[in-house]
Amino acid sequence: MTTHPLDLACALEPLSQGRWRGATTPDYMNMVGPFGGVTVAVLLNAVLQDDRRTDTPVAITTNFCTGTKPGPFEIDVTLERSGKYLQHWTLRQVQGDTVCSTATVVTGRRTDTFSHQAAPMPDVPVAATVPAQAAPPVLHFLQQYEFRFLEGQPRLDKPLETPAQARSRAWMRDAQPRPLDWLSLAALSDGFPLRIMTVRGGLVPMGTVSLSTYFLATQDDLDAQGTAPLLGEADGGRFHAHFQDQKVHFWGTNGTLLASGAQVAWFKQ
Amino acid sequence: MTTHPLDLACALEPLSQGRWRGATTPDYMNMVGPFGGVTVAVLLNAVLQDDRRTDTPVAITTNFCTGTKPGPFEIDVTLERSGKYLQHWTLRQVQGDTVCSTATVVTGRRTDTFSHQAAPMPDVPVAATVPAQAAPPVLHFLQQYEFRFLEGQPRLDKPLETPAQARSRAWMRDAQPRPLDWLSLAALSDGFPLRIMTVRGGLVPMGTVSLSTYFLATQDDLDAQGTAPLLGEADGGRFHAHFQDQKVHFWGTNGTLLASGAQVAWFKQ
Repeated sequence: MTTHPLDLACALEPLSQGRWRGATTPDYMNMVGPFGGVTVAVLLNAVLQDDRRTDTPVAITTNFCTGTKPGPFEIDVTLERSGKYLQHWTLRQVQGDTVCSTATVVTGRRTDTFSHQAAPMPDVPVAATVPAQAAPPVLHFLQQYEFRFLEGQPRLDKPLETPAQARSRAWMRDAQPRPLDWLSLAALSDGFPLRIMTVRGGLVPMGTVSLSTYFLATQDDLDAQGTAPLLGEADGGRFHAHFQDQKVHFWGTNGTLLASGAQVAWFKQ
Repeated sequence: MTTHPLDLACALEPLSQGRWRGATTPDYMNMVGPFGGVTVAVLLNAVLQDDRRTDTPVAITTNFCTGTKPGPFEIDVTLERSGKYLQHWTLRQVQGDTVCSTATVVTGRRTDTFSHQAAPMPDVPVAATVPAQAAPPVLHFLQQYEFRFLEGQPRLDKPLETPAQARSRAWMRDAQPRPLDWLSLAALSDGFPLRIMTVRGGLVPMGTVSLSTYFLATQDDLDAQGTAPLLGEADGGRFHAHFQDQKVHFWGTNGTLLASGAQVAWFKQ
């Protein structure tokens, strides 16, 4: 049995309490450095592996300070506050003196409460009836994912004459099957192309600046999903003066909203 | 001329580079401790006042670790990375040994680029034709705001028999007029009631866990807004096992999307 590429990318060696060593892997390389989602996942893993942790992930915000260079990195984890219901963590990923990323993570206790889903899964064709698209070679990490776009597939070959809609919907999962867990959900939460690609077409220098993912699932919800595709939706608000925002939602095959999130990204021109 | 309550709440005394002292003020008290938005604003102010800062705010994520007690607090600011286009900051607000909140801030250079707004302002009646609502006494800080709900006004008197829609729309601004700036936009970004109040009605113990605000405006956009009301929209996805997500958008009176954001909140039962 071979180790899944995501598990290789998220592997961490403990150095001391709250200090870990990891390394980039070639599988998830993006235009400059690793795909942001795999950085989110390895940061989250440093909290998941922490023996002070009492509960499951609720939120992770990752700030991409500079591109991670191929090779090893270290992650420092600080437990800022440990309460009855919630733990707050801050993280810093470094290569030598360079801060590659910072993150904050919240973990929390989940028990039965009032329950209501206000955002129903959009009514779309089932995944099996939607063709999967080949990953564009320039975005190497996409070879690790299977995307079945329902709408809003970005056109990377050249800019569009008029802006296209900002919304994309796609069935998505790991190309090499792997049962959904917190790590893969964290990575997928950054899987959609930046909305500027969808709206404008073409490809200019760009990158996520800050990304927040909220885990709305319980462990049971993840277990129910297994290796089936998630339905993802991404939408954007404004593209102006180098910055754009976007929001994402991810539903399991049975219609449960498993995660949502938001990010702000930078584009060059 | 009296000082505006928001400026009193955001006032900071410099202790050394990247270290500030502030204090809670009675004006913005919520059920437990200060209203989250005023914490976001005072944290942002510690970056705005920093003489290492080169550009305007792009993003702030605030994690509410524990309620701030009435009285003084200190804020530590670390400049993690200073690049040509972006600066990354991390902050920690403390009272003695207790971490009240942590935050990450991104500031960035804004110049002319491709520009497009994908999220139009909803077609709603102008603010002057919509009555302002009295603030419920239990949420004291709301006396600092003028809300004109267009839909989704929460019912705090008792739980609803069936869940209401998660979406709210309202015209909103400072009750005591103050021209819009980064601080007031930061505070307003947490101004909507938590979606659980709107969906379920009634009032149970609850609080924002992590909140991210993205500034999509330029200084010119803020100047154009002045003291006029913003149109705000808040919506939520799922309420389950103690946690709920919500997304917000804020448009200026002229239809420009000035900010968007997201948060995850905890509720007790």
